[in-house]
Amino acid sequence: MNKDHNYVVIMAGGIGSRFWPSSRRDRPKQFLDILGLGKSLLQLTFERFLPVCPAENIFVITNAKYAGLVKEQLPQLSAQQILAEPSRNDTAPCLAYAALKLRALDPQANFVVAPSDHIILKEAVFTQHIQAGLDYVRQNPVLLTLGIQPNHPNTGYGYIHFDTDATHEGIYEVHQFTEKPNTERAQAFLESGDYLWNAGIFIWNVNTVLEALQHHAPEVYEILQQGDGKWGTAAEPGFLATHYPTTPCISIDYAIMEKANNIYTMPADIGWSDLGTWGSLHEQFDKDPQDNAISSPTPQLIQPIETQNCMIRAEQNKLVVVKGLDNYIIVDEGNVLLIYPKQEEQDIKQVSKKLAAQFGEDYL
Amino acid sequence: MNKDHNYVVIMAGGIGSRFWPSSRRDRPKQFLDILGLGKSLLQLTFERFLPVCPAENIFVITNAKYAGLVKEQLPQLSAQQILAEPSRNDTAPCLAYAALKLRALDPQANFVVAPSDHIILKEAVFTQHIQAGLDYVRQNPVLLTLGIQPNHPNTGYGYIHFDTDATHEGIYEVHQFTEKPNTERAQAFLESGDYLWNAGIFIWNVNTVLEALQHHAPEVYEILQQGDGKWGTAAEPGFLATHYPTTPCISIDYAIMEKANNIYTMPADIGWSDLGTWGSLHEQFDKDPQDNAISSPTPQLIQPIETQNCMIRAEQNKLVVVKGLDNYIIVDEGNVLLIYPKQEEQDIKQVSKKLAAQFGEDYL
Repeated sequence: MNKDHNYVVIMAGGIGSRFWPSSRRDRPKQFLDILGLGKSLLQLTFERFLPVCPAENIFVITNAKYAGLVKEQLPQLSAQQILAEPSRNDTAPCLAYAALKLRALDPQANFVVAPSDHIILKEAVFTQHIQAGLDYVRQNPVLLTLGIQPNHPNTGYGYIHFDTDATHEGIYEVHQFTEKPNTERAQAFLESGDYLWNAGIFIWNVNTVLEALQHHAPEVYEILQQGDGKWGTAAEPGFLATHYPTTPCISIDYAIMEKANNIYTMPADIGWSDLGTWGSLHEQFDKDPQDNAISSPTPQLIQPIETQNCMIRAEQNKLVVVKGLDNYIIVDEGNVLLIYPKQEEQDIKQVSKKLAAQFGEDYL
Repeated sequence: MNKDHNYVVIMAGGIGSRFWPSSRRDRPKQFLDILGLGKSLLQLTFERFLPVCPAENIFVITNAKYAGLVKEQLPQLSAQQILAEPSRNDTAPCLAYAALKLRALDPQANFVVAPSDHIILKEAVFTQHIQAGLDYVRQNPVLLTLGIQPNHPNTGYGYIHFDTDATHEGIYEVHQFTEKPNTERAQAFLESGDYLWNAGIFIWNVNTVLEALQHHAPEVYEILQQGDGKWGTAAEPGFLATHYPTTPCISIDYAIMEKANNIYTMPADIGWSDLGTWGSLHEQFDKDPQDNAISSPTPQLIQPIETQNCMIRAEQNKLVVVKGLDNYIIVDEGNVLLIYPKQEEQDIKQVSKKLAAQFGEDYL
């Protein structure tokens, strides 16, 4: 335990199906070296937090089926640092479990919650914000969220409507959380200047968040709170197996962030991307002069000829020769080859599900 | 030895680079299951000749580096039935070696020479022609070639100009062999009705062809004829290693067929294709309603969507999802993925050579 009582909880239970065929049921997006850097997104996320607190204060919460993958990719974690959810019940039960376990370990804990499958390009700025946020929540009983300055009217994100006047050390009061708006509203949000993207990065003191859960989501809190006295003991897995699946499936946004009145945000320009789709991944990549983005451990072997605006991903040592394509996603990964128009990428999920139903889960 | 003294020599030394990335330096076209039938073209060729003569009378001549592959694919062959050329010296030395070795085995041998990388759809008709041809050359000291009725003005084939009047049991005298004509001449050949395609399938008595070689290609014959007395003995490999590479590199067409005056042809409608390129392979295949040809041991996993006129090849259990392509070659094989416009397939060879020079022979 460090003197600042700072902790990190990385959420790594998502199934990330939008990156099929790279992401699979048994190896979702956060476990992939999606950027071709030799490290998975989870590993990058873990490393990003090392300046914030000691490695032993970083916890990863994931579905039980991925606990082995977490251990494999982050061998430095002790068994107690990997929290395995016996069922998939969305983020409110997930974070209630993490908070209860942390409180048992350190009743003064302040912690950051972060998704494991995003990228953050400006790591130093990010670290500064996280540290400032932790300092703030240590003193103030608020639920703090990082807010990302929007740069286009994205209809797939949640938005944070904040009070641009009420600032304290770069921290603003939040009026309201708004889930995925339609295009018109998203455009209006963008133009107004008082909306931020909700990146799912939260900072709070363990007692503040548990009080919020107890008050706004008692149906979650009361089930899991019965685990007190068992956290970190041999009784924890049995308690979880019995009780966790009985919690309602609700997100932390819906459970507390849309209801509590002590929500604050810290606008942050951190080069954030949720890498939500192949198309958004293409946007993030350094591109060749023809605007092709290459994701491969051996990128020199990807050979686009008269090909532009493509996202091309292949495995190590694979030579890819592609001629005459424009605006395509080309992914050769394991037992699947996908060649698909980038503008129709929203259909890929359905195609993959249909084919897996036909040919087997090995393809999903 | 059967009473008819009938033999077959299958030529399997080609490098077949036009099927890259399926064909490779270490596994050329004839060794591939290019049709997705579960058998390589060599295996199909071998089986095609089983009605013609006993299996022990079928020989395969190949480059020494492929002798192991031949043994692997045709385990029923004895070591004596696999003739290994220590160097690549074109077809005249290759067939001189085969003829000399056969003569030592059976001085009355009649034999068929056939490439290993073509397909013949009308096998019964083919067998009838081959048997009739063997009967003919047993009685007549002629060099007989199967002539394929042309159906388009192909500029990549050799043509046989024959005397449409001088027939004897469906066998015609040949005026002249003509190598790859330009488009105008090819069109004229097609319209004239007295030109056939040279499929590289020859039938002759061993003495007839050796006399022709001695007379028209003494520079080949005299070197290899020194092996007499050594064929089939422990001295054969040593003799070949020393002498074979010193023979000139010339084709059998150039060495004797364009010079001899005892050349005859037997026009044959046998559903022949040399499967010379991905495009011609596409033509041969049964196609889906969108004119896509699928070459895969698991063809149900090839999923073209709004895709037409494509040649799609993948390995076992590979799911291929491709949307919105027209007239493309898509081949995923080993360490190479090729996505290339079918109409530009003539460029593939050069592209593959350039890339192999850059990234290594493993890709060729």
